Amino acid sequence: MAIYDLTFYYLLLFLAISNASTTQFYKPRLSTLVRTILRDPEVVSETLSDDFQTFYYTQTLDHFNYKPESYKTFQQRYVINFKYWGGSNAGAPIFAYMGAEAPLDDDLEGIGFLNDNAPRFNALQVYIEHRFYGESIPAGSFEEAINNSSIRGYFNSAQALADYAEVLRHVKENLSAESSPIIVIGGSYGGMLASWFRLKYPHIALGALASSAPILYFEDITPQNGYYSIVTKDFKEASENCYETIRKSWSEIDRVASEANGLAFLSNKFKTCAKLNNSSELKDYLDTMYTVAAQYNHPPNYPVTMVCGGIDGASEGNDTLSRIFSGVVGYIGNRSCYDTSVYSRPTETSVGWAWQRCSEMVMPIGRDNTTMFPPELFDLETFIKDCSSKYGVSPRPYWVTTYYGGHDIKLILRRFASNIIFSNGLRDPYSSGGVLEDISATVLAIATKNGSHCLDILPADETDPLWLIEQREKEVTIIEGWIKEYYADLAEMKQ
Amino acid sequence: MAIYDLTFYYLLLFLAISNASTTQFYKPRLSTLVRTILRDPEVVSETLSDDFQTFYYTQTLDHFNYKPESYKTFQQRYVINFKYWGGSNAGAPIFAYMGAEAPLDDDLEGIGFLNDNAPRFNALQVYIEHRFYGESIPAGSFEEAINNSSIRGYFNSAQALADYAEVLRHVKENLSAESSPIIVIGGSYGGMLASWFRLKYPHIALGALASSAPILYFEDITPQNGYYSIVTKDFKEASENCYETIRKSWSEIDRVASEANGLAFLSNKFKTCAKLNNSSELKDYLDTMYTVAAQYNHPPNYPVTMVCGGIDGASEGNDTLSRIFSGVVGYIGNRSCYDTSVYSRPTETSVGWAWQRCSEMVMPIGRDNTTMFPPELFDLETFIKDCSSKYGVSPRPYWVTTYYGGHDIKLILRRFASNIIFSNGLRDPYSSGGVLEDISATVLAIATKNGSHCLDILPADETDPLWLIEQREKEVTIIEGWIKEYYADLAEMKQ
Repeated sequence: MAIYDLTFYYLLLFLAISNASTTQFYKPRLSTLVRTILRDPEVVSETLSDDFQTFYYTQTLDHFNYKPESYKTFQQRYVINFKYWGGSNAGAPIFAYMGAEAPLDDDLEGIGFLNDNAPRFNALQVYIEHRFYGESIPAGSFEEAINNSSIRGYFNSAQALADYAEVLRHVKENLSAESSPIIVIGGSYGGMLASWFRLKYPHIALGALASSAPILYFEDITPQNGYYSIVTKDFKEASENCYETIRKSWSEIDRVASEANGLAFLSNKFKTCAKLNNSSELKDYLDTMYTVAAQYNHPPNYPVTMVCGGIDGASEGNDTLSRIFSGVVGYIGNRSCYDTSVYSRPTETSVGWAWQRCSEMVMPIGRDNTTMFPPELFDLETFIKDCSSKYGVSPRPYWVTTYYGGHDIKLILRRFASNIIFSNGLRDPYSSGGVLEDISATVLAIATKNGSHCLDILPADETDPLWLIEQREKEVTIIEGWIKEYYADLAEMKQ
Repeated sequence: MAIYDLTFYYLLLFLAISNASTTQFYKPRLSTLVRTILRDPEVVSETLSDDFQTFYYTQTLDHFNYKPESYKTFQQRYVINFKYWGGSNAGAPIFAYMGAEAPLDDDLEGIGFLNDNAPRFNALQVYIEHRFYGESIPAGSFEEAINNSSIRGYFNSAQALADYAEVLRHVKENLSAESSPIIVIGGSYGGMLASWFRLKYPHIALGALASSAPILYFEDITPQNGYYSIVTKDFKEASENCYETIRKSWSEIDRVASEANGLAFLSNKFKTCAKLNNSSELKDYLDTMYTVAAQYNHPPNYPVTMVCGGIDGASEGNDTLSRIFSGVVGYIGNRSCYDTSVYSRPTETSVGWAWQRCSEMVMPIGRDNTTMFPPELFDLETFIKDCSSKYGVSPRPYWVTTYYGGHDIKLILRRFASNIIFSNGLRDPYSSGGVLEDISATVLAIATKNGSHCLDILPADETDPLWLIEQREKEVTIIEGWIKEYYADLAEMKQ
């Protein structure tokens, strides 16, 4: 638990993001968790409970092809926690976490929903790592795999879902747990996977909890402005002055930077650890910091409030730039220097997701001049050109909606499918691409006004506000209903 | 129409089947239509109505991969009949035929369901050819494509369904027919594709008519004996004497063949066009003839009745072999000689389906000693060995149930999915692997006691018995209900 409580106090944040001097591939990040870097080893527990047992499944590289090379295999990591399981004789349920665009490690205790609710359900916990991340690499190291154009083609969601199907089938067979219902759970990209898994593999998963899954952020279903509109709204609601200060800061930074010794002045002003080479380094750092604060704007400290508290308090001075720096201090804390490259260091997540976005996950996220950020429109043509030149193959921007759907989702799914919860926090900018209305009696949307990205599936904490406790209880009750109905169906079938 | 009426009278039958001296890959055939060979050009019309317009879609070779070579394309043929369409402004429906394991040509008028019902629905008719058949070949000729181990791997159902999704999306966009509901229709393997398409792409197809689709003939869901048990039952019900005669004929053929000049005697007795090289040539010919008769045992002439009429009438003599030959004459008619190789000539269908069975469509069809045929158990290990040695890659016998499901289908789909009709004729041996009970209020089974393989989707004919007319009417009424409900939903959404 410590990791999450401490995140906003002591640690610099690390997220799946590029610096903005590269193209838009990486922006914004989509991780369930605010993954930390520069952890303080004294305060952050790295010890994983012994209840988590690691396994490897010999996974098929290509499920949709029968060429000799499709038969290559790799070792896919999955982790099981048997502690609370009621066993196969009881048909006790299985909670399956669908790994997302990161190594599995942080998720084992980070996705608290499984751990927290397993006792109540007597549930087995299974966590499956997404291909190409962590230890589930099809060829050599992550770097080798992602840089090999004939291997990274297999790095996509349809293959990943088929992986999960195989692993879950394998687990059930191994445990003779044929009658145990599986509930799949995921957040962010993993939430998309969870909902898609229920849609594509209803014979394997009885239901899905898809937390903060922006499955509608494809093509023109969601306005490209959606994401940054919500970031802006979050700040505006926290403080009109804060919003205004940020909105006018970008040109002020550019103005100062263009003056003689402007960059030195800014480096000094913002106590950057390394001298700024251009104003973009600073602007990208701030840009990302604000979006991270908005996306992961969760209790008890609410990062947006922390930033705005700094800006409005103006501990560092009253002019725009001083206020902006006060915001940084308000959020990050007092530091001898501030590392503006912290968000842009490449990680498996940033590098992996860059590829995923450039191949199939073409989410057209941009911003016009109505947000508090400088405009940066998403232009599909440019995006395709940039991706093609980087990877040698063109994105397929229409594939996600062709394979998974998305257009007219209410019309399509109201009489098809069942047992999916789409949960969103309306302060999460990705909620703009989420399902926010009930689709049917069993395909449900649960949105909390003050919630943030994937908050409901993070570990419960004693500081949780009532609305969050209630949200989780609502989700758990719905899932209990699915399982109860399933057992009744099962009994009826056996008659 | 002429093709189908005349089939059983004048023509030798041709089907997707090997001679049985090869392995079980091809047996039994699975085609919707009894495809003819040695057509009599004087009586069979080859002229297709001008209403059918041919188009080609530039199709992606590999939908599930982003390697450079996955981006190769091929020209996929599809055919549209606009004649009865009510147009996009009216949101008039689209009937989409999912091509199966054969060139599309014969299906255009052969799948009469579309033509016969398009006027009632003001429906557009779209017929899509399955990749690797007919003109939809990814590399050179059919022979080149199927013999190229790095190309034929793309020859599978998941890729084919994705092809259909792309073509249908393209057609709707081109015609601005976004609000037109699509009903997919298929028979036999094409029926499996139709039901799977509704399950995987509900956002593209509103509903599916899956005629004679043995989606449960995988793994151990259906007893391997299922198919030949029904063939046997068909004959037994037609005539106990006929059944008994056939049952004891196999050893009689072997006994005679093993005598001096036995093969010459048999060749003479059965008026074979070429001298028999072994008794298997004759047995395989008869074996296939009986199963074809049973599978396509349709009105008005009922091939099983024709065979048994011959056997029981004994026009050629009263001993077992004479009676068997009388059965051939009763079915095929009087000929100067009988071509025992007619069923075993390779065609796109036999060669293509052999690959499909050896890769993913691993249907364990066998027979023990309770049928009227010599036992020939399906042994998975042998099957895998044979396929591997033939193609260099191993079948994936668990893939169909992993990707599409099948186990506990009633439990799984009763609260998931909607708008599928599984139609079967209970005299069709493939009905043993079909869905014969309603799964829910909208996933329905329609079985006719006397129906044969895919009979309901063949062209209506004035000789059709009442039960067949009623079956089709029931199907059409259900589909009308789906469409009506869809329009109501659409109107509600627009409010």
